[in-house]
Amino acid sequence: MTDAPAALLSAIVTILAILVFFYMGIRVGTMRTRHNILAPATSGHPEFDRAFRIHYNTLESLMLFLPLLWIATIYFRPWGWLPAAFGLLFVIGRIAYMQLYMTDPARRGPGTYIGAFAMLGLLILSIIGIAHAWSAEMAS
Amino acid sequence: MTDAPAALLSAIVTILAILVFFYMGIRVGTMRTRHNILAPATSGHPEFDRAFRIHYNTLESLMLFLPLLWIATIYFRPWGWLPAAFGLLFVIGRIAYMQLYMTDPARRGPGTYIGAFAMLGLLILSIIGIAHAWSAEMAS
Amino acid sequence: MTDAPAALLSAIVTILAILVFFYMGIRVGTMRTRHNILAPATSGHPEFDRAFRIHYNTLESLMLFLPLLWIATIYFRPWGWLPAAFGLLFVIGRIAYMQLYMTDPARRGPGTYIGAFAMLGLLILSIIGIAHAWSAEMAS
Repeated sequence: MTDAPAALLSAIVTILAILVFFYMGIRVGTMRTRHNILAPATSGHPEFDRAFRIHYNTLESLMLFLPLLWIATIYFRPWGWLPAAFGLLFVIGRIAYMQLYMTDPARRGPGTYIGAFAMLGLLILSIIGIAHAWSAEMAS
Repeated sequence: MTDAPAALLSAIVTILAILVFFYMGIRVGTMRTRHNILAPATSGHPEFDRAFRIHYNTLESLMLFLPLLWIATIYFRPWGWLPAAFGLLFVIGRIAYMQLYMTDPARRGPGTYIGAFAMLGLLILSIIGIAHAWSAEMAS
Repeated sequence: MTDAPAALLSAIVTILAILVFFYMGIRVGTMRTRHNILAPATSGHPEFDRAFRIHYNTLESLMLFLPLLWIATIYFRPWGWLPAAFGLLFVIGRIAYMQLYMTDPARRGPGTYIGAFAMLGLLILSIIGIAHAWSAEMAS
């Protein structure tokens, strides 16, 4: 059912997104050691608190992003590379979010918006793709 | 390997589940602004705290739900629409959970139980489906 | 595209990982009742706090693990059972992490490292598999 090159591009984007998320987790661990915040505490120093929120906000967004990326990849056929392109934009948005948030939480907006725009794109592709597959199913 | 119409129904349910989760996140943001809770804080007003827990409890349950939904969709063949039907029940359970929890956290029970029942159904379908696929594999 | 027996093994491992995660969530609920911590509070007794962090740290790691497991399963073809073997190691690591952390959070190291090693293995298999699929795509 899957278009092989499209899936390959989305697999690469998935790995990139996961590596960014992994790096954010490592950063939380580093801050934990630096500011001597003992587990199970998840708060205690402004720098740690920011790193922690960046990590968890990205966890939330991956729960939206990964299913949308793969549903778009499987069902949206006109331009197979387009889901992966939106996916790459999401990854860039998350990196921007991380950098902006670490500097000043009040400035995180642009990073959030880039990621949200990419996910909106994937949602639209998913809906178009599902609608096409549904019509094809009905016609068969 | 996938039964195309069954996968299509589960893709639609996945999108619905994600939209409910997205709405919960938006609600957290709205409460953050309304009660003037500045990032990275994740607590500060009872209404915000409830919206935040609803969002994260649903994050936890999606990590169980989505893999179960798709394993059931791929491996359970007798009634291809059944995984998506349990999936829809999960989504309804989560909406009930959100509404009940916002009114009074002590009343969240029914929402939790509907969601848990749907996931138990998907777990059973997954195990049946895997067992069948395993037998077929052994026989080939 | 998927190697059917490899996918079957990874589906079984996915179910196991999810059952461990579900058990961790049940444990949080049990501690909540035992120590009379009312929702939406997520802190209040050291034993509850440990159970809560175990659950959420595993949520974070599943967001890395499940996509890596399935990308490795789909793309790494030489030994189809190897992704599921690393997956099983991840599950064992998470159980060790839970037991060690409940006893003493400072001792959680070995559980974390076993899980991290398993995920590193899956990352390497994913990259090898994607690289092979890419070469095959270019050659065709």
